[in-house]
Amino acid sequence: MTFDPQTDTDATQQLAYVIDSGEAEHLAAFLQLLPPEDTTYTISHLDEQRRTRMLSLLSAEHSDLAADLMEHFIDEHAADMIEQLEPSEAAAIVDEMDSDEQTDVLAELDDEDAEAILDEMDPAEAEDARDRLQYDEDTAGGLMITEYLAYRDDQDVDAVIADLRANADEYNEYEVRYTYLIDPAGKFIGVVPMRSLVMAPAGRKLADLAIKKPTSVPVDAELEDLEGLFDRVDFSAVPVVDAKGRLVGVVQRAAVQEALSESANEDLLKVAGIIAGEEFRSMPMMSRLLRRLAFLLPIMVLVLFSASMIHLFIGTVGKLPVLAMFLPVVSGLCGSGGNQAVGVSLREVSLGIIRPRDFLRVFFKEAVLALFAGIVLGAALLAVVWVWQGNFYLALVVGGSVPVVIVVAKTAGGIVPLLLQRLGLDPAMASGPIVSTTTDLFSFFIVLLFATLMMSKIAVA
Amino acid sequence: MTFDPQTDTDATQQLAYVIDSGEAEHLAAFLQLLPPEDTTYTISHLDEQRRTRMLSLLSAEHSDLAADLMEHFIDEHAADMIEQLEPSEAAAIVDEMDSDEQTDVLAELDDEDAEAILDEMDPAEAEDARDRLQYDEDTAGGLMITEYLAYRDDQDVDAVIADLRANADEYNEYEVRYTYLIDPAGKFIGVVPMRSLVMAPAGRKLADLAIKKPTSVPVDAELEDLEGLFDRVDFSAVPVVDAKGRLVGVVQRAAVQEALSESANEDLLKVAGIIAGEEFRSMPMMSRLLRRLAFLLPIMVLVLFSASMIHLFIGTVGKLPVLAMFLPVVSGLCGSGGNQAVGVSLREVSLGIIRPRDFLRVFFKEAVLALFAGIVLGAALLAVVWVWQGNFYLALVVGGSVPVVIVVAKTAGGIVPLLLQRLGLDPAMASGPIVSTTTDLFSFFIVLLFATLMMSKIAVA
Repeated sequence: MTFDPQTDTDATQQLAYVIDSGEAEHLAAFLQLLPPEDTTYTISHLDEQRRTRMLSLLSAEHSDLAADLMEHFIDEHAADMIEQLEPSEAAAIVDEMDSDEQTDVLAELDDEDAEAILDEMDPAEAEDARDRLQYDEDTAGGLMITEYLAYRDDQDVDAVIADLRANADEYNEYEVRYTYLIDPAGKFIGVVPMRSLVMAPAGRKLADLAIKKPTSVPVDAELEDLEGLFDRVDFSAVPVVDAKGRLVGVVQRAAVQEALSESANEDLLKVAGIIAGEEFRSMPMMSRLLRRLAFLLPIMVLVLFSASMIHLFIGTVGKLPVLAMFLPVVSGLCGSGGNQAVGVSLREVSLGIIRPRDFLRVFFKEAVLALFAGIVLGAALLAVVWVWQGNFYLALVVGGSVPVVIVVAKTAGGIVPLLLQRLGLDPAMASGPIVSTTTDLFSFFIVLLFATLMMSKIAVA
Repeated sequence: MTFDPQTDTDATQQLAYVIDSGEAEHLAAFLQLLPPEDTTYTISHLDEQRRTRMLSLLSAEHSDLAADLMEHFIDEHAADMIEQLEPSEAAAIVDEMDSDEQTDVLAELDDEDAEAILDEMDPAEAEDARDRLQYDEDTAGGLMITEYLAYRDDQDVDAVIADLRANADEYNEYEVRYTYLIDPAGKFIGVVPMRSLVMAPAGRKLADLAIKKPTSVPVDAELEDLEGLFDRVDFSAVPVVDAKGRLVGVVQRAAVQEALSESANEDLLKVAGIIAGEEFRSMPMMSRLLRRLAFLLPIMVLVLFSASMIHLFIGTVGKLPVLAMFLPVVSGLCGSGGNQAVGVSLREVSLGIIRPRDFLRVFFKEAVLALFAGIVLGAALLAVVWVWQGNFYLALVVGGSVPVVIVVAKTAGGIVPLLLQRLGLDPAMASGPIVSTTTDLFSFFIVLLFATLMMSKIAVA
């Protein structure tokens, strides 16, 4: 229905051909031969029907490959593809995903769709998945995997090695750098690194090999706490315990890094005015339109509000129409300056270097910098306007406004993200528009006020 | 010299007190007791002298702790701190860093400072570090660690386990999930997972345990290739080989994820107008001022250039001063719309979903969406202006400009990042200003052109 000229690549066309042939074996071989760096691109350029048919073909005998392919895509995107499949096909693929990916994808689906898939899954896998789905996405519970090696602490090395040997296939994709020790109630009591197991003499009890004072995190630990912890320790994974101290999963360093990278990516989109930080051009047009309008309609109100400042001075503009040209110059320049301060604050907040209590420090740092920047930029603008318009007083109004406005723009840019964070709002989403509106409003006011005050001198010159 | 009201936290004050006491043992104990999520914040709020003194105290007996602390900070920030120390103190700390962190920090220093530190380091560590420093930061060579386990393929399991046992302390922080097999020339020939070692019967040759067709990456593989690879495989690390096929290091999944997260963070700053994507308020004021001006001075030229369009229609503005109010409304609204398209394109480019060849597809997708968005927003604006100003033709000029301008803004926003990428430029840095300038210029032209054409009707109303 929507106009969508697909610019297919050669690889996409070949893939489409293989899918149309309906040969699952050929398809699997083709996908395995695709260069890794082209996989995402090639698959995302397939039309939706073919993509669904591809997954449906793979779900019978090659569900592990299909699960690997899904990891190339953002969770939301993967969920969109899974949703198109029959529940039994979807279940075969979801069954093969790593448990953290499973949770992420199922969480993106409608409850009804997720239930239909869970019902078709391996019952033990489905139960684990249901347990994990109760945790928030960006907490230890949402990021953890539940495939890990746990043993009672009174077992000895030989029993563990026998178990490893017997279940080598199943343990193949586990977090196997550590084994975790639990007591009979499932309570987490220690960690034995794999290398200690390798080196231990036969008959040694696990309890004797355990690291003293093992690190663990609560299931509701937040992403930033996990970031701080992995900054501080060298482990590649830490165990996750519930409120009763029971071992419930393992969070891997790579999962935390991946979540941080996604959150930085979402911030980039939020700053650009994409609500919730998610949009792909492959989404339905109407959904994209509504998301964009949800941001642009409030923006329209804000720009009208700041422009209404000009209305107060419409007489001044009538006497000196050239001001219409310099209003957007001052507001655009100072708005860019404010935006720089927003960027630095968002970054410093996300890195944990500043917190809302640093309000005053950020304010003064930005004010001093803005004053110097404003003097340089204002002087340059004064010179340009003087030469261009041949009117010193007009140039003084325009150039002289810059230091005043940019101090407001940059201090607002620095502190608005902190204030929003203090209020529990998302600083990445709203800081830009708030700072831009403030800067516009204030720049129009200052330029027109100065012009009104200097009108007699400007008019004479 | 610069005004810097330090808003110290209690923890920072306590830390300062411990540093001033000069007791390295107390200091180490205090730092180890700090909650991980407060460490970065507390240390970054120390004044520079105390931070240097802290590291200098730790460098003698607690250089490992100092090295761990450094990992809390971005490389540039860590390098700034290291630079303040005596080369011998700095060397003691750098010696204790993981090899990838070592490279990152040394690469940020001036060549002279880095050499002074390398000269004081353990000679073998220093030689390895010099080797790694020749690789670009975001390639396999720059991201790899050089602590890994490699054995000749004709060795047997017993010899390896004996070696592991003998060097357990040294191997403690190695990537120990795999052992790598090399031939006598150092050429990479295979991988043996640690669990296969654990389970292998005594006397077994390593060659018999090796994974067939092992994955490896060339030392110059780019970050995005590594991202694609780790998306596709389940390994937590892959071996890195030089042009001659020799094993030179190991890239860990977590290192790739961390580099991606840093690059997304830098994009956020670049989009906000911070050159090179790096600024912290702890940097010297002059350096921050110059970085910001380096962006704002070209912006001044751009805003002057787009505003000069208004000059062509100054007569129209003189007849209808209220246009001065609606020019920034249309340009601000449509500029926000263009910015949304920039954000989505930057994201899709960084995820590998679109490439420069998708130019036309992106163009049409944005054009269709923009047309619908423009009709909704234009109609809303027309209604507001009509009610507010009581002049239907003026409202028609303002509201009718929106669909025309927003189609240009959103298509430009969608394709400019692709064009910049094709030209080998950084899309995150320049897309925003280019799209804003285009939108401003075009919106001023369209609104003033429509107003000039409709002037007779507007004036009568």
